Amino acid sequence: MSSTAVINTIKAEDLYSIDGVRVAAVEAGIRYRNRLDLVLMEIAPGATVAGVFTRNAFCAAPVQIARQHLVDSGGRIRYLLINTGNANAGTGQKGLDDALSSCALVAEAAGVNVSAVLPFSTGVIGENLPVDKIAAGVPLALSALGQDWLSAAKGIMTTDTRPKARSVIVDCNGRKVTITGIAKGAGMIKPNMATLLSFVFTDAGIAQSLLQSILNTVVDQSFNRITVDGDTSTNDCCVMTATGKSGVTITETDSIAFTHFETALQDLVRELAKDIIRDAEGAKKFVTVDIQGGADTLECLKVAYAIAESPLVKTALSASDPNWGRILAAVGRAGLQDLDVSRISVYLGAVCIAENGTRSTTYSEELGQAEMNKSAIDITVKLARGNARETVWTSDLSEDYVRINASYRS
Amino acid sequence: MSSTAVINTIKAEDLYSIDGVRVAAVEAGIRYRNRLDLVLMEIAPGATVAGVFTRNAFCAAPVQIARQHLVDSGGRIRYLLINTGNANAGTGQKGLDDALSSCALVAEAAGVNVSAVLPFSTGVIGENLPVDKIAAGVPLALSALGQDWLSAAKGIMTTDTRPKARSVIVDCNGRKVTITGIAKGAGMIKPNMATLLSFVFTDAGIAQSLLQSILNTVVDQSFNRITVDGDTSTNDCCVMTATGKSGVTITETDSIAFTHFETALQDLVRELAKDIIRDAEGAKKFVTVDIQGGADTLECLKVAYAIAESPLVKTALSASDPNWGRILAAVGRAGLQDLDVSRISVYLGAVCIAENGTRSTTYSEELGQAEMNKSAIDITVKLARGNARETVWTSDLSEDYVRINASYRS
Repeated sequence: MSSTAVINTIKAEDLYSIDGVRVAAVEAGIRYRNRLDLVLMEIAPGATVAGVFTRNAFCAAPVQIARQHLVDSGGRIRYLLINTGNANAGTGQKGLDDALSSCALVAEAAGVNVSAVLPFSTGVIGENLPVDKIAAGVPLALSALGQDWLSAAKGIMTTDTRPKARSVIVDCNGRKVTITGIAKGAGMIKPNMATLLSFVFTDAGIAQSLLQSILNTVVDQSFNRITVDGDTSTNDCCVMTATGKSGVTITETDSIAFTHFETALQDLVRELAKDIIRDAEGAKKFVTVDIQGGADTLECLKVAYAIAESPLVKTALSASDPNWGRILAAVGRAGLQDLDVSRISVYLGAVCIAENGTRSTTYSEELGQAEMNKSAIDITVKLARGNARETVWTSDLSEDYVRINASYRS
Repeated sequence: MSSTAVINTIKAEDLYSIDGVRVAAVEAGIRYRNRLDLVLMEIAPGATVAGVFTRNAFCAAPVQIARQHLVDSGGRIRYLLINTGNANAGTGQKGLDDALSSCALVAEAAGVNVSAVLPFSTGVIGENLPVDKIAAGVPLALSALGQDWLSAAKGIMTTDTRPKARSVIVDCNGRKVTITGIAKGAGMIKPNMATLLSFVFTDAGIAQSLLQSILNTVVDQSFNRITVDGDTSTNDCCVMTATGKSGVTITETDSIAFTHFETALQDLVRELAKDIIRDAEGAKKFVTVDIQGGADTLECLKVAYAIAESPLVKTALSASDPNWGRILAAVGRAGLQDLDVSRISVYLGAVCIAENGTRSTTYSEELGQAEMNKSAIDITVKLARGNARETVWTSDLSEDYVRINASYRS
């Protein structure tokens, strides 16, 4: 039993504060003027923090430092420092020094260990972080700490056209627990262990190892199931904080409360992930790719991503063209062993477009067109090879995507 | 020692005829009027024919029939029948019947076995082949058979903006052998065993099993090394015919002639493959991705395709933007085990942009910009993990690619 504040146009009053957390977003002029680009989040002593990070081998300096600080501090993190405009990736030793210097600026001003500060960066790859601008911004952020969560969600945006934030109050055996999360990302999205940047907070108390385990599970079924362009970022991070201030402790032994909490968290984080797809660069369509009847998870995902990342499927989606042959072609090249295409069916929404590997006798172009005209499109493929099922969310590929990414640096 | 007629604007006189082969292209009105869309190629008795076909599990009906006829006839093929405008893919049993009927039309008119005819189709997926239009076109084509190779190259085009054809005369121990090949393809290009459609002919005599072996080798290093959009077609085929009419027989025992022949053939087919990239849908750039120092071929190809298929790298190429961070990000997500990024160097042309995993001290934006402004761009990645090296050719991703593929069916 959970009440969810699902937000399209986010209003500040729709976001529940988390007891034990304060946030601030300021303009530090890191790449552009008049833009919130430095966000500081303060976590009360006693909270636990867990994180999942990109598996891109060229992971950014802040990712490396954040991962190290999580280990060094045993998850006892006090500050999250996030800048946009500069990814501090591909910057070698200088990048590591700069990320550490940024943490030290916060640590010194706030009187905490440097390892209690996690740094996050997002923006252009390959340029040095302007630490001087962060140095000027940190005192402003520290003095502005409060409960303006909407500004925090805006402050981590890059090519995003709108902030992504979700809040939920969960009933855990009659006691209330609050979860609030924010995320950013619109391109270079095929998270591998996490999305570009997402921060989730709860006032429940959760032991650090359990928190990490829950986060792994939840991220795998949300951020790890979306793709805009197949490009895994160097800077993906998702961090979750449990302050314990609600007085409710989540443990695996209380299975009812645990299940309520994890389900609500899963729903919230999945919606954040889907918010990223809804705001995908240049996208006009929200596309759900549902693969059923696979022999195992891996082959379901192979088929799902072959469809979700096919430029030809994505351009057809962009044009609302029921060019379903491109979906078949993507299934066929997904690399499944001994695939018997004569058993495969494909659906657009509830419309069966292909069965037994060929065009359905009940299909008509008009039926397909009606489905394709929708802004939310469901593609279902039934493989008839087993009982595995996986869902991936993606967007269409439009001329605007190309325009945005051909001009992003300039 | 070979003299190659490398053709940009192909002229009919630049294409050498192959003794033992006649070709014709006619307008059959399969999808559009006033367009060469049916090509017939007649092969003299005694020739050997080998083919490689798409590995897409949803392979088209003509692919299935062609593969079967090659086996049934022992490679003793007499006619190749190619239509554009309709792929005859995703068409089930009806599609197989239609492909076979098309072969029968030629077989009956020409007095050969039906298994001596190979069918090929390219165009829209999922619509039934208009056999009546092919029936009307076949007699026209039979009566038009001759040496107009340029029309044949034009007759197999779909979204191609120009025909692709190459000819070479090879010196084999003092005796001359001729090779002529044509190809089509501009989108849905990531051949897996062959490209969309390519037909190569020689007047050398080559045993069928050797011809198949040579073709496998040559295709693997040419059509299997290009990608436009990562979408493997349902209809890819490359067929090679050896008529033996030159009186020169190629065997493995005469290693000098064999090497001359295979090298010339490899060069010719690789250029045909590169012609497809040069004419890729919406493309302004010809991009060579050269991966050096890999542990093995597989990991070189993983890195090469991660770069060559990255929408972010391809949009940066389209904008001539030296946004090299996107190349690093693609390398980092290619899935190589234990990749030590601190040993990696990346070059644009001769300009070192990154070394030891970070921006080169000698790099400047101006140097990168100068390379990116070129129409032919070389990206080299040195992995420093071993001695394997692989090269892949690709194109940029432009708004025109999206426009073409969002409107192709309409």
